[in-house]
Amino acid sequence: MPTATAPFVVFEGGDGAGKTTQIEALREWLSRGEQEVVVTREPGGTKLGLQLRDLLLHGDHVAPRAEALIFAADRAHHVETVVRPALARGAVVIADRYQDSSIAYQGAGRTLDAKEIAEVSRWATQGLVPDVTILLDLDPAVGLARRGPGGDRLEQEKADFHERVRAGFLALAAAASHRYLVVDATLPAEEVTALVRDRVAPMVECAP
Amino acid sequence: MPTATAPFVVFEGGDGAGKTTQIEALREWLSRGEQEVVVTREPGGTKLGLQLRDLLLHGDHVAPRAEALIFAADRAHHVETVVRPALARGAVVIADRYQDSSIAYQGAGRTLDAKEIAEVSRWATQGLVPDVTILLDLDPAVGLARRGPGGDRLEQEKADFHERVRAGFLALAAAASHRYLVVDATLPAEEVTALVRDRVAPMVECAP
Repeated sequence: MPTATAPFVVFEGGDGAGKTTQIEALREWLSRGEQEVVVTREPGGTKLGLQLRDLLLHGDHVAPRAEALIFAADRAHHVETVVRPALARGAVVIADRYQDSSIAYQGAGRTLDAKEIAEVSRWATQGLVPDVTILLDLDPAVGLARRGPGGDRLEQEKADFHERVRAGFLALAAAASHRYLVVDATLPAEEVTALVRDRVAPMVECAP
Repeated sequence: MPTATAPFVVFEGGDGAGKTTQIEALREWLSRGEQEVVVTREPGGTKLGLQLRDLLLHGDHVAPRAEALIFAADRAHHVETVVRPALARGAVVIADRYQDSSIAYQGAGRTLDAKEIAEVSRWATQGLVPDVTILLDLDPAVGLARRGPGGDRLEQEKADFHERVRAGFLALAAAASHRYLVVDATLPAEEVTALVRDRVAPMVECAP
């Protein structure tokens, strides 16, 4: 029986922090129970989003405000067509990135006004906030070493950009710590998985 | 010699009102002088904008807020890479649609909050406002008869949508009438051209 209280869980963090691995571990564990689990991502959690993601990450120069607005458009469409319908039918939603990525990358990274970015995102989502945001925190130099050279347009930004992004994420977590779990992403993967599970389990009515 | 005071001129109005014809007439006349004239459009005045325009007008369902944000992204990129550089070198910029279209179509048409749409657009453009907006006002039924059936996703909306759009444009013009020229688009084209020219000529230092 679906519960109306299944949580909206978001994973945030720099590239190479292990989001994909940890999302899969949480999904696998939750799926052992009766719980419907929807795993999704931003940008690119919808067909429109995939097209927008492609413009953002593999296209030519995009003006910074345009970049921020395209991420917000992706989010608006994603929330309306995927996240809210899933939550409404009682599914746990696990998202790979959400609005904190916009604030960290376009705000701290691009040095647009973080408050304005947050306001655009709030408008895009009609105020939908995650029940818990799991920040996999990692020194960008370690993340770069993990994932190797190359990557998309954002991944190729310089070291100080990624330092600002990390600081942006940590500032967001510090400002609303009750709805964050900040995990040291250099811990062994199984330890991270256990910390995440301990935080999410009490939020899921029919957890395994 | 370029002047720093060349105006930013925007044409607004429903489909079939004659924007294309009137923009070309104004461009042709201004180009007889020494004045550089840049004619552009929204959405689609840039390469990125063309891709966004395609997603908006010929793709699948787009959530209303996502639609508004994509138009705003197009505008942010267009203003930063086309409009502001042209104005900075003293060119007259003539744009086919600008933020009033967002407010009229996504606000009045989609019944999103017009003030919020205006705020998103203001953020996208960093507050760049046209020196004059020429509203070619037309009964949507007449516009439909002029352009025939078919058309893109917005053009295919029902009659009451287009009625709300028209009312939205007129409300914007009424609220800031000093920077609008509202023209009855059922007048003969040459009369419209003359009215537009009379309004723009004093704004252009080296008009023909």
